[in-house]
Amino acid sequence: MDIKQYMEQLGQQARKASRAMARADSATRNRALTLIADGIEREADALRAANRLDMDAAAANGLAPAMLDRLALSDKAIATMVEGLRQIVALPDPIGEISGLKFRPSGIQVGQMRVPLGVIGIIYESRPNVTVDAAGLCIKSGNATILRGGSEAIHCNRALAQLVKEGLLGAGLPENAVQVVDTTDRAAVGALITMPQYVDVIVPRGGKGLIARLMEEATVPMIKHLDGICHVYIDDMADLQKAVAIGFNAKCHRYGTCNTMETLLLARPIAAKVLPELAKLYATKEVELRADAEAAAILAGYPHLAAATEEDWSTEYLAAILAVKIVDGIDEAMDHINQYSSKHTESIITEDYSAGMRFLREVDSASVMINASTRFADGFEYGLGAEIGISNDKLHARGPVGLEGLTSLKYVVFGHGEIRQ
Amino acid sequence: MDIKQYMEQLGQQARKASRAMARADSATRNRALTLIADGIEREADALRAANRLDMDAAAANGLAPAMLDRLALSDKAIATMVEGLRQIVALPDPIGEISGLKFRPSGIQVGQMRVPLGVIGIIYESRPNVTVDAAGLCIKSGNATILRGGSEAIHCNRALAQLVKEGLLGAGLPENAVQVVDTTDRAAVGALITMPQYVDVIVPRGGKGLIARLMEEATVPMIKHLDGICHVYIDDMADLQKAVAIGFNAKCHRYGTCNTMETLLLARPIAAKVLPELAKLYATKEVELRADAEAAAILAGYPHLAAATEEDWSTEYLAAILAVKIVDGIDEAMDHINQYSSKHTESIITEDYSAGMRFLREVDSASVMINASTRFADGFEYGLGAEIGISNDKLHARGPVGLEGLTSLKYVVFGHGEIRQ
Repeated sequence: MDIKQYMEQLGQQARKASRAMARADSATRNRALTLIADGIEREADALRAANRLDMDAAAANGLAPAMLDRLALSDKAIATMVEGLRQIVALPDPIGEISGLKFRPSGIQVGQMRVPLGVIGIIYESRPNVTVDAAGLCIKSGNATILRGGSEAIHCNRALAQLVKEGLLGAGLPENAVQVVDTTDRAAVGALITMPQYVDVIVPRGGKGLIARLMEEATVPMIKHLDGICHVYIDDMADLQKAVAIGFNAKCHRYGTCNTMETLLLARPIAAKVLPELAKLYATKEVELRADAEAAAILAGYPHLAAATEEDWSTEYLAAILAVKIVDGIDEAMDHINQYSSKHTESIITEDYSAGMRFLREVDSASVMINASTRFADGFEYGLGAEIGISNDKLHARGPVGLEGLTSLKYVVFGHGEIRQ
Repeated sequence: MDIKQYMEQLGQQARKASRAMARADSATRNRALTLIADGIEREADALRAANRLDMDAAAANGLAPAMLDRLALSDKAIATMVEGLRQIVALPDPIGEISGLKFRPSGIQVGQMRVPLGVIGIIYESRPNVTVDAAGLCIKSGNATILRGGSEAIHCNRALAQLVKEGLLGAGLPENAVQVVDTTDRAAVGALITMPQYVDVIVPRGGKGLIARLMEEATVPMIKHLDGICHVYIDDMADLQKAVAIGFNAKCHRYGTCNTMETLLLARPIAAKVLPELAKLYATKEVELRADAEAAAILAGYPHLAAATEEDWSTEYLAAILAVKIVDGIDEAMDHINQYSSKHTESIITEDYSAGMRFLREVDSASVMINASTRFADGFEYGLGAEIGISNDKLHARGPVGLEGLTSLKYVVFGHGEIRQ
């Protein structure tokens, strides 16, 4: 069987399973999740053994240490997967909720019911825990899913897929509700993203390169996450203490995350006060500061100083590097953000009511904050309970995507024999 | 200037105008809508003259009478445009609403703010009234828009565009918030649907052919409406009077609309009772019935009877033709619907509670009804106040799309200096 046929078969099976999943009640879906969590705990040794096969192959293939690190299934990673599933069980069921039921002058009563999207394709790299997180979110939200993990994690993903199947069957759900693509052939991805008849949405979890490639070919809609070029703007009316704490946290709490600040904007009147304080903290982490001329003058003597180029304003460093720019005030700050931001997350530090409210309203990003670190832009911190990813899109789901993002609203009409006049 | 450059310029201007529109308050946007309505009333003679130029050219080009009919700007059409704008003014402003604000354990307060999508491209055929309806909905929802109407309506659209511009300027809004593509070159459409940097979403309003063509080329997301293959299923527990009234209304109220029933499914135990009653009514309208063998046996002697072929189950007739099929009961009905429906609107006629609830939950269409005519699937009937179209998609907007469908939710965070631990 060729890859296209194989993927077509997975698609048909998923579509069929999605009907049973949409019908299944909350208790049944939760039962499956609990059985999977139990299975992972019970089979931890087997999972570690499967992971060892992947790790050995990856080491032999010369995979970079950072990639090996992501591939590793530590005891902690196993415990986190299990804990994650149990947390998903505890979340309220999003499916079937009917909202806004209103009588209309015609006599019909109209509302909206939350329903699963149907079949969700998830494409990801390395980390085997995504297999379980994604399967868990899709089962909870009544969807069927097709998972395409990284080829380097194939043994571990196969072992996890087996446990997921057992959990589904144990709860009386179709085993094809979660299918792991069992081939490392890249053509499988090409097939998955061009089967709109079987797949309702693709969630890619991976680097910018992966997503750019998918965008060119996909005919299935995507909930996609591009880069995170996040800004903190320190307004002239900022509280200095908050500005310094947030300016340091947003950059240095973690470097590799998409909600990390990449550019710091400072209002001219306050820059000379706040920037030296921040620089003292950045120096402890050896953060390289790429500053415009004005900021560089204030930072003179800073040990890791460089001149910012045009390219810096649109670079996601994911490293101990920060672009710094002095602006006139909120208008120039918002112009800069609207021009260079990837529309992920921006924060203003200010005690000025009108400046804060303008920033909230006028900055066109998925998350807009007043006096908080950009690092809070995250499904868990927002209270979604779990997240399948963070969306840079404006349609459907924007920002951290939880269970609701995997659902849709259909109109329901309760009638009493009404006909249109 | 070539078409690509011209469209690029419209795109840049729209993006710039969209920022001012997003900032504009409710009163200002409503003021623009009122000025446009006033202008249309005042300039009715000039609009009729412009429409006459289009009508003469269309007649000379041998446009079909049905198309000429859609192109005509009657006094009633003018009054309806004006009334439509005034109704939009009266709708609540969807923009800026903040919902779900909750404190999180970290101390931040998180909610979602409804914001405009940005720039909306609308592609439509013939009817000049769409120019005003679409402009009105986009202005109300704080978006900028680029309108590409049919080439046959260019004179009338130009005249309307001028009035829209005057209304915008009169309210202090940028005139480029609504731009009518002022060329009949088809390349303009190709450019419009491939400028994701300037256009956030495309709403095509037109036939299946138009939309299929756009789907192949578009890189901008679309809120699209394909066909309406709508079903009514008369359950064995149906109330006969409701079944006959709805079965007749859903087919015969209007033939050319997307929410018209195209296939009637009847449960075997009730078919011999209800079908002859319905046939009496269909006969008064000379409706052709394309029946499966079992239904044909019941309908023997009906003057406009034909045998249904496989193709009939997936045909949108938009005419006085109806496919008729006998099924075992609700399971076969739902299997048929899930296989052949275009996922627009389906209705079950039943007095059985469990059958009705199963139908609501398990049928995967944008609108699902109990004991009501499919003809109710419409933005006005649902209480949206106005509709920009009806979506067959599952992502973002599903079913009738009102002002909310032209908006997005961004996360807003009110902090007090919180940093991530």
